[in-house]
Amino acid sequence: MKIDYQPIEWLGNRVRILDQTKLPQKETYLVTDDYRKVAGAIKELKVRGAPAIGIAGAYGVVLGALKIKAASREEFLKQVQKVSDAIASTRPTARNLFFALERMQKASAKGKNPEEIKKALVTEAQKIHKEEADATKHLSELGAGLMKKGWTILTHCNTGPLATSGYGTALGVIIATHKQGKKVQVLADETRPLLQGARLTAWELKKAGVPVTLITDSMAGHFMRSGKVDCVITGADRIAANGDTANKIGTYPLAVVAKENRIPFYIAAPVSTIDMKIKSGARIPIEERGADEVLRFNGQLLVLDGINAANPAFDVTPNRYITAIITDKGIIKPPYLEGIKKLI
Amino acid sequence: MKIDYQPIEWLGNRVRILDQTKLPQKETYLVTDDYRKVAGAIKELKVRGAPAIGIAGAYGVVLGALKIKAASREEFLKQVQKVSDAIASTRPTARNLFFALERMQKASAKGKNPEEIKKALVTEAQKIHKEEADATKHLSELGAGLMKKGWTILTHCNTGPLATSGYGTALGVIIATHKQGKKVQVLADETRPLLQGARLTAWELKKAGVPVTLITDSMAGHFMRSGKVDCVITGADRIAANGDTANKIGTYPLAVVAKENRIPFYIAAPVSTIDMKIKSGARIPIEERGADEVLRFNGQLLVLDGINAANPAFDVTPNRYITAIITDKGIIKPPYLEGIKKLI
Repeated sequence: MKIDYQPIEWLGNRVRILDQTKLPQKETYLVTDDYRKVAGAIKELKVRGAPAIGIAGAYGVVLGALKIKAASREEFLKQVQKVSDAIASTRPTARNLFFALERMQKASAKGKNPEEIKKALVTEAQKIHKEEADATKHLSELGAGLMKKGWTILTHCNTGPLATSGYGTALGVIIATHKQGKKVQVLADETRPLLQGARLTAWELKKAGVPVTLITDSMAGHFMRSGKVDCVITGADRIAANGDTANKIGTYPLAVVAKENRIPFYIAAPVSTIDMKIKSGARIPIEERGADEVLRFNGQLLVLDGINAANPAFDVTPNRYITAIITDKGIIKPPYLEGIKKLI
Repeated sequence: MKIDYQPIEWLGNRVRILDQTKLPQKETYLVTDDYRKVAGAIKELKVRGAPAIGIAGAYGVVLGALKIKAASREEFLKQVQKVSDAIASTRPTARNLFFALERMQKASAKGKNPEEIKKALVTEAQKIHKEEADATKHLSELGAGLMKKGWTILTHCNTGPLATSGYGTALGVIIATHKQGKKVQVLADETRPLLQGARLTAWELKKAGVPVTLITDSMAGHFMRSGKVDCVITGADRIAANGDTANKIGTYPLAVVAKENRIPFYIAAPVSTIDMKIKSGARIPIEERGADEVLRFNGQLLVLDGINAANPAFDVTPNRYITAIITDKGIIKPPYLEGIKKLI
């Protein structure tokens, strides 16, 4: 699989981020050496998708560290921590961001002086980047083994190379299946409010040559009940130790309706998305974003002025609705508590 | 309840239709004596909602009949039938349109000559209009008896006065509950692709003074699972003899998730929505609308050029997910086959 676009690239002392809020109409880039701009890009979803924001966060720490003038190791580490905290405060749900920041912290602890720490951070961020890309490649190939010839696969949100800086998670599995000549086709949920499915998934599948039909999120149930869907596969933003999974808002009802219609429901995610410190989905923090994302479309108000909207960005799918979790370290089947523990 | 707007008004020899595609930003009207313009307004959703399109269809037949010059009764009836067929071909799913056209046909059969038939058609259309408005008033009050103080009620699409030319069906129940001082609040699904929830339901609830929070369709499951929803209530476009119900796309998954979370799921509709000739939901024709409604927003393409979209306008909720069907003739509980037969 050849990917001719990259959501994040390290340019030595700057990072280049493909602005996903402008896709598919415009392919524009943010090039910056300012960690605050990276944090802003994560917050504003210029870079999004759990694995990709982990990678962007790691490079953000590098950019912040490269500019710190402190001479003492202690003072330097203190200032790196401030950079890391600013990046951590951008988005609360995706585990991969914290996974990356924790790795960056460990890497910095090993350096003896600011110069060594800077080098260690650059190395670690690139390592995270490469490992996450490799992980998605591996899980995509593992997941493709579960997909059958001629299947129609339903997916939600965007989980391709744009979301991962690699092959993709759920979309990686689909594209790997396509490459194996299994002639699958995709029903892609548009994914309101920000239309990542319509804007990004349809764009990526078209580039990959996979037949795709766009539907509104509300149509998925109809197609499942009509026997038109062979499996549902989505990515994940955080997986608890028991397999409960937070993912883009709208994932949970897909899982319920899939189960009701005996359609397999798969989660695809690298192990960096698993949070062993969180026992169940009830403890996963759910990001609440601004009401304007629901009330407005391209700046234009959809409703009368003065109407309220809610905007939880994720929901939690309890483990009992999940047929299998596809990771780079293997495919986990129920019971998840044991399966995940064994894998990690 | 005072309603200061009317989706359809009969002006003697013309009909006035509030253009719902422009709401809530603009309150514009179509005034016409041309039945083809009424048919166009139904097709383009200028007038929409199962009861309202029945009423509009009846007035369309009147407008067509008033212009027929045929001298013989037979030739006149033949031409009326052509008008009726043109109106019948606009939208296939909502039962109320065919219910109204069948009543208009029966009324015309009684007239002895063209002049008598014209008078009979005018009278019958106004009777249908009044009866449908009265039916929604009655079912709203019956349904309010099921709603409890302080409830948060989730609804989908638009089912208020705009959709019915009366109180409303599901929204009528909510507004009647509010008028009883039960202090309910509403979570309104925006209802993609045409945003009837965002544009119309939020507008009508605001006018009625009912607290409303707008959500995307994909958020409904999250709020149900989080214990924030006390009941779900929607309208219906066609109810089969066994209670299976076709309604706006996205209704079926709401019903499945409601059942999964032990939340009551109600359908509210006048008996004119029940189709005794259709044994089960599998036989209800589902309208497939143009892909552009999904691909574009206010004319602007959301996706890359060349992406396909599906656009089924309705889905079918099997009777086993429905807690009760609220009609103007009474509240029907399972088993529906017997309950509906007894009521009709």
